[in-house]
Amino acid sequence: MSGWVQIVGIGPGDAALVTPQVQEALAQATDAVGYIPYVERVSDNPNLTLHPSDNRVELDRSRHALEMAADGRRVVVVSSGDPGIFAMAAAVYEAVEHGDPIWRDLDIRVLPGITAMLAASAACGAPLGHDFCAINLSDNMKPWELIDKRLRLAAEADFAMAFYNPRSKSRPEGFKKALKTLKESCGDNRPMIFARNVSRPDQTIKIVPLQDTSPDMADMRTVVLLGSSQTRIIARDGTPMVYTPRSVAK
Amino acid sequence: MSGWVQIVGIGPGDAALVTPQVQEALAQATDAVGYIPYVERVSDNPNLTLHPSDNRVELDRSRHALEMAADGRRVVVVSSGDPGIFAMAAAVYEAVEHGDPIWRDLDIRVLPGITAMLAASAACGAPLGHDFCAINLSDNMKPWELIDKRLRLAAEADFAMAFYNPRSKSRPEGFKKALKTLKESCGDNRPMIFARNVSRPDQTIKIVPLQDTSPDMADMRTVVLLGSSQTRIIARDGTPMVYTPRSVAK
Repeated sequence: MSGWVQIVGIGPGDAALVTPQVQEALAQATDAVGYIPYVERVSDNPNLTLHPSDNRVELDRSRHALEMAADGRRVVVVSSGDPGIFAMAAAVYEAVEHGDPIWRDLDIRVLPGITAMLAASAACGAPLGHDFCAINLSDNMKPWELIDKRLRLAAEADFAMAFYNPRSKSRPEGFKKALKTLKESCGDNRPMIFARNVSRPDQTIKIVPLQDTSPDMADMRTVVLLGSSQTRIIARDGTPMVYTPRSVAK
Repeated sequence: MSGWVQIVGIGPGDAALVTPQVQEALAQATDAVGYIPYVERVSDNPNLTLHPSDNRVELDRSRHALEMAADGRRVVVVSSGDPGIFAMAAAVYEAVEHGDPIWRDLDIRVLPGITAMLAASAACGAPLGHDFCAINLSDNMKPWELIDKRLRLAAEADFAMAFYNPRSKSRPEGFKKALKTLKESCGDNRPMIFARNVSRPDQTIKIVPLQDTSPDMADMRTVVLLGSSQTRIIARDGTPMVYTPRSVAK
């Protein structure tokens, strides 16, 4: 078998954020699988046979990639951001664990990428500059009670926080509940950052005091960051700078 | 003023992980400041005046960068990994907040990079594939009690975890205490991953059951990951694959 699977992170949107390592994998591959808009982003490689698929078919897509690799194809699984952060890598390994035993011997690699929270943080300063957590706010695949528990404990730990998949048309109520829990648990007015279409030409960054936030400020194209109790805002003409200091007083 | 400061993430080591955006900044800059080994990594740019400095002088280095930018220089602050994750971005903003008011009007940007935990996660599978937190284990700039509290709450929240700066010669006891807390708080034998010199030719990945870990397994060149209670190991010939599933049973 000379086939392989490389699960590649193409970053949040800007082509200047795609690593040379991922560019090389795309150049070497024979086939690309992934969610339609991500496969479109790599469609200018004439050597690639494209296999775009719909959202929410991550396991089917993973099995397809593994089958093709077992047949000797060189397959990239195209993932937004970083494949290991709320993206395709865990799906591929889940397919391996529960699939054909020969898949375990395939050459499977993950090539890291710029995940959305890093680009969002960079766009407004350094709000994740100290201890932080990252939480997927979708309850499609876990109970809401677990999300709520994690939000409360993260506030108690005084983590800065990054939230992926805050809100979608099919889940209009989740982010509303999350904001309610955060407003109560944090009890202060630390900045929340709404980074939409981050790194793209139509990027918008909104910095809003937590108690003034409302659910409609986020959608599926938004990654949301929340400072810790220590996070600072530096006022200036234009958009302020937000950062979380490296130190906490002893 | 036509000067600027760009705080650039050069990734964990492999040049193939430096984004085109950062490469372009290095090509445009007149001056590079940073910790000696990181400045050495960009020293092949003949146009750059290099200003390497020692460890633990982050604020002095930041002020120097801001002064040069105010004088019209184009300055890159070279940061390992991603500048916003336990790296130079927060230091530069701290210098801005407490420094010369004219610095607030400078063109200051953060260019994201591949932070160590992403490369470490990719190297062993997808252990951070679900909700997780990142904690700097150094107590140089915060009380140990806060670190301990965060470890206990992170275990209670069942986050996967990434640990930066686990252990140094000047702090031999901290990681020992962290492991004791984690062994107690997690109460199971989930995998801990020791990723040393990640992405470099001498990279090593060790996957060790939590209860079998010992403090000497980490040093300052190691980023340490810990699974959640849900993390899976896929056995095979050679190094196993580790991943945290995307779903938690409802």
